[in-house]
Amino acid sequence: MPHKLKTAVLGATGYSGIELARLLARHPRTEAPLLLRRHSEKSAGKGPEPPDALALGLPHSGNGRANGRSSIQSFSWSALEEHGVELLFLATPHAVSRELVPEAISRGLRLVDLSGAWRLKQEQNRAVYGFKDADPQTATKLTAEAVYGLPELNAVPIKSAALVANPGCYATSVILALAPLLAADMVDRDRGIISDSKSGVSGAGKEPTARTHFVSVADNFSAYSVFSHRHTGEILEQLALNSSQFIFTPHLLPIPRGILSTIYLNLNREVTADEIQDCLRHFYQGKRWVRIFPASTLPEIHFSAHTNYCDMGVCLAPDGRRLVIVSCLDNLLKGAAGQAVQNMNLMYGWDEAEGLQ
Amino acid sequence: MPHKLKTAVLGATGYSGIELARLLARHPRTEAPLLLRRHSEKSAGKGPEPPDALALGLPHSGNGRANGRSSIQSFSWSALEEHGVELLFLATPHAVSRELVPEAISRGLRLVDLSGAWRLKQEQNRAVYGFKDADPQTATKLTAEAVYGLPELNAVPIKSAALVANPGCYATSVILALAPLLAADMVDRDRGIISDSKSGVSGAGKEPTARTHFVSVADNFSAYSVFSHRHTGEILEQLALNSSQFIFTPHLLPIPRGILSTIYLNLNREVTADEIQDCLRHFYQGKRWVRIFPASTLPEIHFSAHTNYCDMGVCLAPDGRRLVIVSCLDNLLKGAAGQAVQNMNLMYGWDEAEGLQ
Amino acid sequence: MPHKLKTAVLGATGYSGIELARLLARHPRTEAPLLLRRHSEKSAGKGPEPPDALALGLPHSGNGRANGRSSIQSFSWSALEEHGVELLFLATPHAVSRELVPEAISRGLRLVDLSGAWRLKQEQNRAVYGFKDADPQTATKLTAEAVYGLPELNAVPIKSAALVANPGCYATSVILALAPLLAADMVDRDRGIISDSKSGVSGAGKEPTARTHFVSVADNFSAYSVFSHRHTGEILEQLALNSSQFIFTPHLLPIPRGILSTIYLNLNREVTADEIQDCLRHFYQGKRWVRIFPASTLPEIHFSAHTNYCDMGVCLAPDGRRLVIVSCLDNLLKGAAGQAVQNMNLMYGWDEAEGLQ
Amino acid sequence: MPHKLKTAVLGATGYSGIELARLLARHPRTEAPLLLRRHSEKSAGKGPEPPDALALGLPHSGNGRANGRSSIQSFSWSALEEHGVELLFLATPHAVSRELVPEAISRGLRLVDLSGAWRLKQEQNRAVYGFKDADPQTATKLTAEAVYGLPELNAVPIKSAALVANPGCYATSVILALAPLLAADMVDRDRGIISDSKSGVSGAGKEPTARTHFVSVADNFSAYSVFSHRHTGEILEQLALNSSQFIFTPHLLPIPRGILSTIYLNLNREVTADEIQDCLRHFYQGKRWVRIFPASTLPEIHFSAHTNYCDMGVCLAPDGRRLVIVSCLDNLLKGAAGQAVQNMNLMYGWDEAEGLQ
Repeated sequence: MPHKLKTAVLGATGYSGIELARLLARHPRTEAPLLLRRHSEKSAGKGPEPPDALALGLPHSGNGRANGRSSIQSFSWSALEEHGVELLFLATPHAVSRELVPEAISRGLRLVDLSGAWRLKQEQNRAVYGFKDADPQTATKLTAEAVYGLPELNAVPIKSAALVANPGCYATSVILALAPLLAADMVDRDRGIISDSKSGVSGAGKEPTARTHFVSVADNFSAYSVFSHRHTGEILEQLALNSSQFIFTPHLLPIPRGILSTIYLNLNREVTADEIQDCLRHFYQGKRWVRIFPASTLPEIHFSAHTNYCDMGVCLAPDGRRLVIVSCLDNLLKGAAGQAVQNMNLMYGWDEAEGLQ
Repeated sequence: MPHKLKTAVLGATGYSGIELARLLARHPRTEAPLLLRRHSEKSAGKGPEPPDALALGLPHSGNGRANGRSSIQSFSWSALEEHGVELLFLATPHAVSRELVPEAISRGLRLVDLSGAWRLKQEQNRAVYGFKDADPQTATKLTAEAVYGLPELNAVPIKSAALVANPGCYATSVILALAPLLAADMVDRDRGIISDSKSGVSGAGKEPTARTHFVSVADNFSAYSVFSHRHTGEILEQLALNSSQFIFTPHLLPIPRGILSTIYLNLNREVTADEIQDCLRHFYQGKRWVRIFPASTLPEIHFSAHTNYCDMGVCLAPDGRRLVIVSCLDNLLKGAAGQAVQNMNLMYGWDEAEGLQ
Repeated sequence: MPHKLKTAVLGATGYSGIELARLLARHPRTEAPLLLRRHSEKSAGKGPEPPDALALGLPHSGNGRANGRSSIQSFSWSALEEHGVELLFLATPHAVSRELVPEAISRGLRLVDLSGAWRLKQEQNRAVYGFKDADPQTATKLTAEAVYGLPELNAVPIKSAALVANPGCYATSVILALAPLLAADMVDRDRGIISDSKSGVSGAGKEPTARTHFVSVADNFSAYSVFSHRHTGEILEQLALNSSQFIFTPHLLPIPRGILSTIYLNLNREVTADEIQDCLRHFYQGKRWVRIFPASTLPEIHFSAHTNYCDMGVCLAPDGRRLVIVSCLDNLLKGAAGQAVQNMNLMYGWDEAEGLQ
Repeated sequence: MPHKLKTAVLGATGYSGIELARLLARHPRTEAPLLLRRHSEKSAGKGPEPPDALALGLPHSGNGRANGRSSIQSFSWSALEEHGVELLFLATPHAVSRELVPEAISRGLRLVDLSGAWRLKQEQNRAVYGFKDADPQTATKLTAEAVYGLPELNAVPIKSAALVANPGCYATSVILALAPLLAADMVDRDRGIISDSKSGVSGAGKEPTARTHFVSVADNFSAYSVFSHRHTGEILEQLALNSSQFIFTPHLLPIPRGILSTIYLNLNREVTADEIQDCLRHFYQGKRWVRIFPASTLPEIHFSAHTNYCDMGVCLAPDGRRLVIVSCLDNLLKGAAGQAVQNMNLMYGWDEAEGLQ
C-alpha cells in the first residue's frame, strides 16, 4: 500500500475550507486531512450538526454545517509536526497567510494558499491588500518565488513549487477565458477588454453581514467594487495587460454558488468563428478541467456548478471583429478548493483529475 | 384643513420600523412621522442610499436601504415633546419597550408597541422573555391595562387604549384562523390543535447572523423552536387554550416575506363544508382585512404579500370531522406594521383601511 | 365631477397586462378598465383565485392570479364601442398588435402598444420580427407616425400621438442611461458601447417553458441572444448608433422582476466625475421618474423594484476616459405597464406621476 | 474482471431519470446504462448542451441539460434485447409503467419502477390513478407480487423481487419517520397522525406548467392536494393505518430539491426523550441511509440535499405525550433515483451503499 500524503487545512470553517476538507477526505492519495482553525476563528454556527457528517462523506455541504466541527483543532506548529503534515492548505484571511507562510516554508512545509497573499508580483497591485510584513526581505523573496497556481497555464512551475498561490475565483474565470486569444495575439488590447462578472454569495464569505443577509440578496442584483476589485491585479499580471486595457466589474448574484463572466474584446483582424474555436481548443488540448462549447453555444452556471470545470463559449459578432466570451465555474471548486486539489495533484505528480471527479 | 396626527417611530431602521415609516409617510391622516433610533442602534447598512428615498414614497423597500436614513434622529423624550408627538410606535426589542413604556404613559403618550413586551397577561407565558422591570408595580398595572391589538377581535378596547400591544406575526395568522370556530364552539380542543407555520426571513429580523446568511437560507428549509416559540403564549391566551391543547411549530422559508400557517383541528361533531364557510364568513362580516376563500380553495403567500390582508381557506376531511385551515399574511404588514396602522386607525376613530390600500 | 377616461387592456392575463390593469384600476383619472383577452388567449392559471382581488386593489400580484380573472371578457370591436373606450392598451404578442392597430386607428381609438410591433422605423431592424402586414401601405404609414413612447425623450410628440409604441424593458434601461452623454457629445462612439444587461424572469413572459421552469432558473444564470436580441434595434434607432458601435448582451437573473444594465463606454476626452453628474442631472432636470445617484454610488435592483423609477449611477475610471453606468428599473413598471401609464398621462395632459406613486 | 450488470433507464429525460442515469454511469458494478425514451417523450430542452456531459461524469445536473441527450435512444423491446439488458428502470408516467411491466416481466427482465403504478395493494388506494389494464388478470397478479421498494423495511423480499415498486418521495420521508414508533406500538393511532410535508419543485416534474413557472414559485409557498394526494395510499398501506388515522398535507417549497416532513403524533403513554431515541436507533441499527439526530436537534433540507440519506430528528413535548418528528431527504435521491439504486444493490446482493457515496 503506497504512502498517503499528510495534509492539513487551516481555516476549515469557511466555505472554501469546508469544501477542501471534503475533497481531501475522499481523495485516494491523501490521508484524512488535519482540520485546523486559528484561536480567534469563530465556529461555523450554533445549530445542531448532522452526526459525523464529514466522516460519512457528504457530497454537498451548502451551509457549512456538515463539517464535523468537533474534529477541528486549534492551530499550532507543533500540531502540524506531530501529525507529520507535508502539505498545508491555508484557507485563511490574506493577512494571516502573509504572516504564517514564512515560518511554514522555513519548517520545510509545502503550501497551497487560497488567499490573495502571495498572488501578486507587482507592488502596485499588492498595495490594495496593505500587507505589513514582519520580515520584508523574506516576504519579498517568497513573493518572487511563489507560483501562481493556475494549472492550465503554470503546470511546470507548480510541480516543483514550495508555495502555490491559488488564484482568485473571479480571476480564474477571466484569465482562462482570455489566455488563448491573447497568447495567439488575436486581441486588440488597446481597444480595451471588459469582464462583466457575476458571482454567487458564497464568494463573499461566511461572515454574516448586512450585505449577505438573505433579505438583502434575494430578489436583488448589484454591481460592486467597480474599478477597484482586488482580483483585477491578478488578471493584469497573468495576462500581461495594463490597467488602461482592462475593466473588471463584479456583481452579486442571488444564488449560493457559481460565477459567470461575460467578456468583451475586439479582435485585431477579422476572423471566423472556426478560427476562434480552433484557438481555444488547441490551447486547452488535453486539459482535463476546461470545456470549450461549440461556436455560438454558451455555458450556464448550472453546467459547472458542483464540478471542477471551467466552461467557456464564444459568440462572434457578424463583423468578425468583436467577440463575447462567456466563462463559468463553481467559485468554491475550480475557483478555490477544487483548484487547490488540482494544484496538489500537480505538486505530487498525480493525475490532475485525481479526487475531483 | 383638519389636524393631522403627530406620530413617531422608534426603531425605524428595522424591517418593521421601515415599513411603518413608509406607511405613515403616505397616510392621509398623519404628518410625516418623526423617525428615531436609540443611541446604540446600528445604522441600516453601509452601502449607497437611493437619494431621498422615503420622501419619494418608495412603495417597496425590501432591503431596508430605502429608509432615508439621514432623517432618522436619536431618541430622546425632549425630541418627542418638541415635535408634539401624540402617538409613539415602538419597533424596538422587547426589553427596550418594557423599559420605555412606563415613562411614555406617564408623559401622556399613546403607544402602539410592536414588540412582545406587553402582549401577555399570564406570568407563566411572560417568563420566556425574562423581563426585569425597574418598577414592578407599574409594570404589572400596565400589563393588565395593555390591549392586545388584534383589531378583528378587540376593536372596542383598542379604540380607547393608551397602550396597544401589537400582536406577533405568527400569532396573528393562527389566532385569526382559529377564533371563529372556537367562538362557535365547533372545535374539539382536547384532541389537540396544531399550527404548522412557515415564515419568510424578514421575520427573523435584520441583524445579520449565521442563520440569516443567504447561503444558509437559500435552497434550505428548517423547523425551529419546536414546543418553545415565544408566540405560543399569545395564541394560548387569546384563544383561551391550555398548552396541552395546542402545538405550534415555526419553520424558516427561503423567501423574504410572508407567513403561511397550516392548521389542523378536530371538530366536535360532523359538519359540512358550508357550515364552516358560514361560520368564518359570519365571524368576519364587515372585517376589511380578512378574506375568506371559497370552500376547498386555499390562499398562497403571493396573494397577501405586500398587502394588509389575512387570507384563509379551509379543507374539510371527507369524514366531516377533521379540518385543515390555511392562513396567509405578510409578516411585515398584517403581521406587524400594517396591523399597527390598523390599530392607530381604530384608536383615532378613522376608517380601518385608511392608509393601507 | 370631471370626466374619467375610458380605457381597455387587451391581453390582461400576461404579466404586463395584469400590472397595467392594476395601475388603471387605481388611477384617479380613469374608470375601471375594460379587461379583454383574445379568444385564443389561455387563462392565467387553474388554481383558486383570491376573491374579487382586483376590485380590492391588491397592490401586488406577483403570480398573476390576483387579476379577478372572471371579469376578463373576450375581445371584440363592438365590446370596445359599447363601453365607449377611448384609449386602448395592447399587451399582446407583436403580430397581434401589428394586426389590430390599423383597424383601431381607423375607428378613432388612441393606442399604447406594449409590444414591439410599432417601435422600429428602420426596416432592417424590423426584419427580426418578420411582420406580415395585410395592408402594407397603411402599415408603413402607421409605422412612420407611431411615436416611440419614452416620455423622458419624446414628451412632445407623445402628447398628441394616436399610436404610442411603448419601449422594450431592456431598451428603456439602456437608452435612458446613454441619452444624456450622447446628447452632450461626450461619448467616443467608435470605440464601442456595451450594455451587459440582466433581467428577472417575468421579462420572459408568462408562457411556461423549459426555460422558465423554476428548476431551470433557480441557482442558475445565463446569457442569451448575444448579438441578436430584438431590443437592439430600438436602442440603435433611439440613440442614433450603428450596429458596429454597440453590443447588447441580455442575461436571465433568478429573480421574478427587475433589470440591471451595466454599460461601458469611452469618453471622447478626459472628464471629471462632476462633469458626468452635471450632464446627467441637467438632462433629467424635472423628470419625475429618473433618479441620478451620487458619483460612485450605484443603484441596485431592490431600489427600483415595485416602482416606476429608472435609477442610474456612474463610476468613472481613474483615467477619466472610461465610464461604467449602472441603470436599474422594474421591467413590469418603468419597463412596461408603468411607462404605459406615464405615456397615457402625457397623452391626456395630466401630471406624469398621476397614478404611479 | 467480474461481470458488470447491464441496465437500461426508460424515461432518461425527466429529473429522476437523469439522476438515475448519472448514478448508474458511476456505479462500480454496472455498465454504462442504456438510456431510452419513448417515442412521444419530448426532448429535455432546446438550449445548448455541455459537450459529452454524462460521459464526463457531471456530479450535478440541476437543469437536466447535462444528460448527453444525443445518447438517448428510442425505446423498443429489441433494443433491450440487443443490449442484453438484465435490469430495467422505469422513470415513466404511471400509465406507461402499468402498460409496459407485464411484457417486461414475461421477457424475463427484472424491474425497478419509479412511478406509482405498482406500489398499491388495495384497490381503493389505486383508484386515484385510474389505471386501465389491458390484461386485468396479469395486472392483478403482478400487483400482488410487486415489492414495495423501501429497503429499510423490505430488504428480504426486495432481494428476490422481479418487480420492485420504488416508493414515492413524500411517502419515503413519512414512512421511515413513523415506522419505528408504530412497530414499537408507542403511537396512539386513534388520536390521529399528521404529516405536514414540504417539497422542492423538482418533485412536481419537468413538464413546464403555470404551477412550475419561476415567477409562480419564487417568493411563494402553498399547500395543495389536501386530503387527496396520491402518496397517501402508500403511507396508509405500509404503516397499516386507516384513513381516519392520518392526514397528509403536501406543500410546494421555492427550492429546486429536498423534502422536509413535520410529523405530529400522540404517544399512547408518557415517554422520555431517551426512549424515543432508543426506539429509532434500535430500529435503524445498521441501516446505512438513515441518520437519527440527537434528541431535540432537527435535520434541515441542506443536510441531506445531494445525498441518499433520510435524516430524522424528534422533539418531545414537555408532557411526554406528544411528539414532533422532522424527517428530510433529497426527493431525487433517497426519494427516487438513489433509492432505486439502493434497491438494485439489494436485488443483486451488493453492499447497500454501493455507488451512492
